[in-house]
Amino acid sequence: MERRSFIKNAGLAGIFAAGAAPAIVMAQTNIRWRLATSFPKSLDTIYNAAKVFSDRVSEMTDGKFQISIHVGGELLPALGVLDGVSNGTVECGHTIPNYYIGKDPAFALDGTIPFGMNTRQMTAWMYEGNGLTLTREFYRPHNILNFPMGNTNAQMGGWYRKEINSLEDLKGLKMRISGLAGRVCEKLGVVPQNIPGGETYQALEKGTIDAVEWVGPYDDEKLGFYKVAPYYYFPAWWEGGGQFALYVNTQAYDALPAAYKSIVATAASHAHLTLQASYDALNPGALKRLVAAGAKLSRMPQPIMEAAFRESNALYEELSDTNPAWKKIFADYSAFRRDQHLWFRFAEAGFDQFMQQQKL
Amino acid sequence: MERRSFIKNAGLAGIFAAGAAPAIVMAQTNIRWRLATSFPKSLDTIYNAAKVFSDRVSEMTDGKFQISIHVGGELLPALGVLDGVSNGTVECGHTIPNYYIGKDPAFALDGTIPFGMNTRQMTAWMYEGNGLTLTREFYRPHNILNFPMGNTNAQMGGWYRKEINSLEDLKGLKMRISGLAGRVCEKLGVVPQNIPGGETYQALEKGTIDAVEWVGPYDDEKLGFYKVAPYYYFPAWWEGGGQFALYVNTQAYDALPAAYKSIVATAASHAHLTLQASYDALNPGALKRLVAAGAKLSRMPQPIMEAAFRESNALYEELSDTNPAWKKIFADYSAFRRDQHLWFRFAEAGFDQFMQQQKL
Repeated sequence: MERRSFIKNAGLAGIFAAGAAPAIVMAQTNIRWRLATSFPKSLDTIYNAAKVFSDRVSEMTDGKFQISIHVGGELLPALGVLDGVSNGTVECGHTIPNYYIGKDPAFALDGTIPFGMNTRQMTAWMYEGNGLTLTREFYRPHNILNFPMGNTNAQMGGWYRKEINSLEDLKGLKMRISGLAGRVCEKLGVVPQNIPGGETYQALEKGTIDAVEWVGPYDDEKLGFYKVAPYYYFPAWWEGGGQFALYVNTQAYDALPAAYKSIVATAASHAHLTLQASYDALNPGALKRLVAAGAKLSRMPQPIMEAAFRESNALYEELSDTNPAWKKIFADYSAFRRDQHLWFRFAEAGFDQFMQQQKL
Repeated sequence: MERRSFIKNAGLAGIFAAGAAPAIVMAQTNIRWRLATSFPKSLDTIYNAAKVFSDRVSEMTDGKFQISIHVGGELLPALGVLDGVSNGTVECGHTIPNYYIGKDPAFALDGTIPFGMNTRQMTAWMYEGNGLTLTREFYRPHNILNFPMGNTNAQMGGWYRKEINSLEDLKGLKMRISGLAGRVCEKLGVVPQNIPGGETYQALEKGTIDAVEWVGPYDDEKLGFYKVAPYYYFPAWWEGGGQFALYVNTQAYDALPAAYKSIVATAASHAHLTLQASYDALNPGALKRLVAAGAKLSRMPQPIMEAAFRESNALYEELSDTNPAWKKIFADYSAFRRDQHLWFRFAEAGFDQFMQQQKL
């Protein structure tokens, strides 16, 4: 309002001198960024989230703010997005925070942890709880501003060559699983395997490994695991919702005009929403096809879930004792999680459980 | 790209004639819209979604696109948003599609129906299924472009002066409930009551009515129903997720520069996401306070759920027989719903159920 009345009072010369001139500058702000995604095009839902983000930014700026997308390996290694954004090799990246737990396990609190929050709960914590504030404080020394940008939603617990009926069946099980989940699995007797993605199918076929965890029906289907390891367990207790992040280099962000800053944040929200929606829309059909092709759906035995839960809590206590960043963020995360699960058991679960029993 | 090389080749005169001039026009496109919300400020989460939307539009346009917000009753009656946007009294509005089922029950398919989709499923249908396409086709004769803009998430089944243990207890029950849910309730013997919001508490206190349904813990708490009708049932089988809509007048939208169109759509996505997140973040605390204050949480008896489910399906068949718009949209909606509930019972429910059993 103040600016408008200033222009009104300044007369025509004033409009061009003080009013329109900054507007021209803004309209001419042509910006080109590069986005490194950790993902190949074959993971189309995830890859596409970066494209949805970039397309929206372009549309909202009349094409003046262009963000090119570079697949994993093109500019940066798939797991090098954090470093590349941090040091300004690229202005931004789309990745999984859990990739960086080797640097600090607390990255996982921006992604997913065993028995963590589900998709909606995590979104609520990030946007309407303290999640964004706390994780941004954590990222600051890395020179990164983070935005939630998508979630796999609850994942499946992987493909097994043999049935898993008890904790005994986990002893010595060679499974492709990593991160915090791998550490918990190890406590249960699993022998976590680190095998390049492209070699996993063959290793499973040959029996070099006994099991693999990947994502959910839509992504799993493409890799054909059901042909060689048909026991398909649910849920992935280690990924009740796997959140992706947009990382933006702090200096690149700070150099943006104010409107473009808001455009980046809002386009990221849109991509966050639509990646979740994509998985929800695509998983049911894939699950039906997998079952028709021979996948044997099985519930992860309760004793395994309970043992994994105990070991996860022990790990979190250990991390809280030794890692101040973890301690600070996890205290807030776990209090929010407790309240969320308390509330979800009533209206949400009551409604869903009834619907799941019906013939629709 | 083409435009850029055209400018490059046109020289300086060309820039002003063909290149920069449209940019100046765009940068100077000062637009003022009015948004009529159906809601009072006291419903702060819902009211705030319109503000989140408007603030983002302003931020992303450097203040050049301003949308003022007008509470229910200020420019239009709370239930007059559809007509007001349709005839151009205001450029846009934030409302509940279910308010307009008197004109056509098919509006509810953009909002919520008894035993319909939950929040995430509805979002998936709108954004990644056929929901947006089908509902937009339906709205076209009303001169409206619709965007999902928020959801209450699964609602609670209301406050009752007495326990409800069986279908018998519904016979003659005077309950404030309306819309399609009211029609189904009527089949079960309930006598739906239409009482102005402001008089509901008193009517419940005096026993003029026996029960009332409202939203969920956060909104219900403000009205104090727990003091006079302490039996608090879950879930609201009629509102597994109540979606709000942004209505935009078609001519007003068409007159926007392309970038502003995308800005409207993307700001609406952000408000959709954050209203859902608000409810998730706020409901747990409110539920705890309500229980501490004496609310008696009770599960809606299974026979009532089942009878209501049967009556709802009968109503949908009747509507499909008599209403082509309903038939077309519901066919797609119900197929999507079937697949969603099929999928959600595995990884999502398996994970959530385990978590809900744990001491966190």
